[in-house]
Amino acid sequence: MKTLRELADALSLSFRGDGDTPLKAVGSLANAQADQISFLANSKYTHQLQDSKAGVVILTEQMSADYSGHVLLSDDPYVTFAKVAQLFAACERPEPHVHSQTAIDTSAQVGDGVSVGAFTVIEGDCVVGRGCQIGNQVTLGRGVVLGQDCIIKSGVTIEAGCQLGDRCVIHPGAVIGADGFGLARDKQGWVKIPQTGVVIMGDDCEVGANTTIDCGAIDDTVLGNDVRLDNQIQIGHNVQIGDHTAMAGCTAVAGSTTIGKNCLIGGGVGIVGHINIADGVVVQAMSLVTHSIKEPGNYSAASPLQKTAEWRRNAVRYRQLDQMAKKVNDLVKKNQKETSNE
Amino acid sequence: MKTLRELADALSLSFRGDGDTPLKAVGSLANAQADQISFLANSKYTHQLQDSKAGVVILTEQMSADYSGHVLLSDDPYVTFAKVAQLFAACERPEPHVHSQTAIDTSAQVGDGVSVGAFTVIEGDCVVGRGCQIGNQVTLGRGVVLGQDCIIKSGVTIEAGCQLGDRCVIHPGAVIGADGFGLARDKQGWVKIPQTGVVIMGDDCEVGANTTIDCGAIDDTVLGNDVRLDNQIQIGHNVQIGDHTAMAGCTAVAGSTTIGKNCLIGGGVGIVGHINIADGVVVQAMSLVTHSIKEPGNYSAASPLQKTAEWRRNAVRYRQLDQMAKKVNDLVKKNQKETSNE
Amino acid sequence: MKTLRELADALSLSFRGDGDTPLKAVGSLANAQADQISFLANSKYTHQLQDSKAGVVILTEQMSADYSGHVLLSDDPYVTFAKVAQLFAACERPEPHVHSQTAIDTSAQVGDGVSVGAFTVIEGDCVVGRGCQIGNQVTLGRGVVLGQDCIIKSGVTIEAGCQLGDRCVIHPGAVIGADGFGLARDKQGWVKIPQTGVVIMGDDCEVGANTTIDCGAIDDTVLGNDVRLDNQIQIGHNVQIGDHTAMAGCTAVAGSTTIGKNCLIGGGVGIVGHINIADGVVVQAMSLVTHSIKEPGNYSAASPLQKTAEWRRNAVRYRQLDQMAKKVNDLVKKNQKETSNE
Repeated sequence: MKTLRELADALSLSFRGDGDTPLKAVGSLANAQADQISFLANSKYTHQLQDSKAGVVILTEQMSADYSGHVLLSDDPYVTFAKVAQLFAACERPEPHVHSQTAIDTSAQVGDGVSVGAFTVIEGDCVVGRGCQIGNQVTLGRGVVLGQDCIIKSGVTIEAGCQLGDRCVIHPGAVIGADGFGLARDKQGWVKIPQTGVVIMGDDCEVGANTTIDCGAIDDTVLGNDVRLDNQIQIGHNVQIGDHTAMAGCTAVAGSTTIGKNCLIGGGVGIVGHINIADGVVVQAMSLVTHSIKEPGNYSAASPLQKTAEWRRNAVRYRQLDQMAKKVNDLVKKNQKETSNE
Repeated sequence: MKTLRELADALSLSFRGDGDTPLKAVGSLANAQADQISFLANSKYTHQLQDSKAGVVILTEQMSADYSGHVLLSDDPYVTFAKVAQLFAACERPEPHVHSQTAIDTSAQVGDGVSVGAFTVIEGDCVVGRGCQIGNQVTLGRGVVLGQDCIIKSGVTIEAGCQLGDRCVIHPGAVIGADGFGLARDKQGWVKIPQTGVVIMGDDCEVGANTTIDCGAIDDTVLGNDVRLDNQIQIGHNVQIGDHTAMAGCTAVAGSTTIGKNCLIGGGVGIVGHINIADGVVVQAMSLVTHSIKEPGNYSAASPLQKTAEWRRNAVRYRQLDQMAKKVNDLVKKNQKETSNE
Repeated sequence: MKTLRELADALSLSFRGDGDTPLKAVGSLANAQADQISFLANSKYTHQLQDSKAGVVILTEQMSADYSGHVLLSDDPYVTFAKVAQLFAACERPEPHVHSQTAIDTSAQVGDGVSVGAFTVIEGDCVVGRGCQIGNQVTLGRGVVLGQDCIIKSGVTIEAGCQLGDRCVIHPGAVIGADGFGLARDKQGWVKIPQTGVVIMGDDCEVGANTTIDCGAIDDTVLGNDVRLDNQIQIGHNVQIGDHTAMAGCTAVAGSTTIGKNCLIGGGVGIVGHINIADGVVVQAMSLVTHSIKEPGNYSAASPLQKTAEWRRNAVRYRQLDQMAKKVNDLVKKNQKETSNE
């Protein structure tokens, strides 16, 4: 339980209404009860405010004008909501505990306050920073280094030599440091190129469930600080991703591409290899990026959704687009000639 | 071994030919032997019927007219084939067995006839319904509830608090209830929004290998009954999916989107967040759905395949499409004027 | 440590410079030190050659003309680099070791020199060829057959009955032989079709992290020899893939499709079910293949990337393309008539 006043004090914010309102959790406007705190950040949901049963709502000064309930005032209700939710979540942190059924090599250095789940393997020469929470059935390969307070969920594999900074969160099933897709073509067939680099990750990175980040082929694959990757993403070998860049689910980045800082990459995007994306680039969902992007800006490529019957007719025309463009240009030219002849 | 008559009786169907034909398995028309039962549902394969060595073939009355072999008659041979295959598969169900190397919390309630594989973890307060079959290296987080007769394959992670109905099947590597991708942007960088909801799944759902279904951010992510998800699908937080909806592999649904009942979503589809898809919508493979769909119907978006040399020319024109359309409209207008002037 | 002369001898190549140059690893042109060997294969990186500190560089005769350092001469530096890297990697192979905490069924046949990691399950009737290296938390289902010298990384699941040839490499989190997505639609809902086939894989195949290959519905899913699959790929039931075909990450192939030999399939590609792709087909990233391809060649479909503001205007026109094409054709016809009337 926390009171409205306690939350306001913790976040250096002001409030309106009864500071003693007791709160035990966050909730959505639609479903929160009197002991929950909610927020309004998207004007699409404004109509839910007056009917909300939330004990407290996080609002901007302006939004709060017409609202008579208890309010935590914030210039950015969404960020404040995130911080409030973190305050509640921090209370739920389990006691550190190393399960009895694990395989932790004696040469591994495991810091204070580390939890390790059942059937987890920590191989030789690993360094696990203090406060890390490691789930069940995890493998940390030889020489893996985790900074402090990392959370490695169940079923994660981190291959030998990879290094994570502090406070990284890796969700279930993610694979960090698997071999990149490096093949040379000989007359007889493919020759595998042993992948000898690792993955280096800064602080505060998050890697979604079943996301894969390949190790470098020779040099390393590098993520900066505060890089946020959703689920089912594929990051190829030797990719570099700048600080604060976030990618939505199912996006793939091919090898040796460099992505700048503060980029927002939508879901299902493909980015080819050996290109550079500038800082501050936004790419919309399901776009294919085939060349370097040198200017920050907002980019798109996906085809528009249509009724399939219409789509069939339009798709046929798409295949004739170059011909059509030539016809149009011919007509324009003739037309100009005629006009100038008149 | 089952005879043709036994199968016909079990499914309340009639047959033609020798009811005592012994059958031990299903088979394809092309490869089935005399002790196997096959089917013809796709007219593309009609030419294989006469040469098939199958002991029995499942056919419609009409299809069977020209066929002299033993026949199990059905209005829908494909459905009947599925049911016949289920009858054979039911015979192969292993004896219930809990492996000696597991970590099952003493507070977990495990029903009768439950199997648990090696190195599986069942955390505190879980409820596992009777008849469930749980594979190896599975994690059921604290308080997970499984209905009766669920099949959880090896390497699955179900995070704390998620609830599955009866007869759900979860394939290897699937992750249910990992954190949604919830981030607020502060001046310093991303602020993670603790994801406090769970995943609630109805009866008879199937979740493919390495598919991920995120927990809700505040409220829950909800799948109805008989929802069928193929492999490598990503379902974002707070998504709702109606009964009998099926999705093919590699499709992604972003957060807070609602999908109706009886939808068929093709492979590699992307569906953006915060939209609604009506009941009975069909979306073709690799389409991006960027807005709500209010009417049932068949929708497409993917670009048509072309020889790369042609594609290059057409793609350039695609980027000039708006200019081209303006030229065309200008020409049409001039032409109309000229015609009216004549 | 290997000398330049030793490497040249092992690969039957000639060299230039000091054959006694000691080398301990491969390196990139930009970062290699004096005890590393590098290569130049992509002319994009030629400018890095003169400044490279690499002890030896793999070059063609022609490329080496202006270079005064030690050189390993090769007609194909990239292939030679791959082979050199393999020679170094072969030195690092760990001693065979079966971990004390495993669940290996007594009926499994495990060959000489096999390594098995912690918390791995090898079920009844499995056959593991000599020299295989199996990681942690792996499951080999009943009757799985591995050829010689396979490498199965941590967290892999291979379902019952699947068969791999020699020297296959399966990366973490891959799932081989999970049920295909086979459903028949009855009035009440979906009827699952038990998937009774397996996956059969030839020699020298590689399967990327979190890739999934479904078992056959009735007959089998079949990969030839030297098939190379990157991460996060989905291969549906009864797919057949020919020798030496390679696919980049996040590509999906729907059920019963046949792909020829020596194909190169880009990343994020979708290939629909029940079609045939000829030998030697190249498909560019994020294309959807909706019909059989009978001729070798290079195929594309993805939409071109545009600034979102332009994209919006062009996408609207794309939906009107058929109308536009009709207008253009009308104008062309009228124009021809006028011209012939003049």
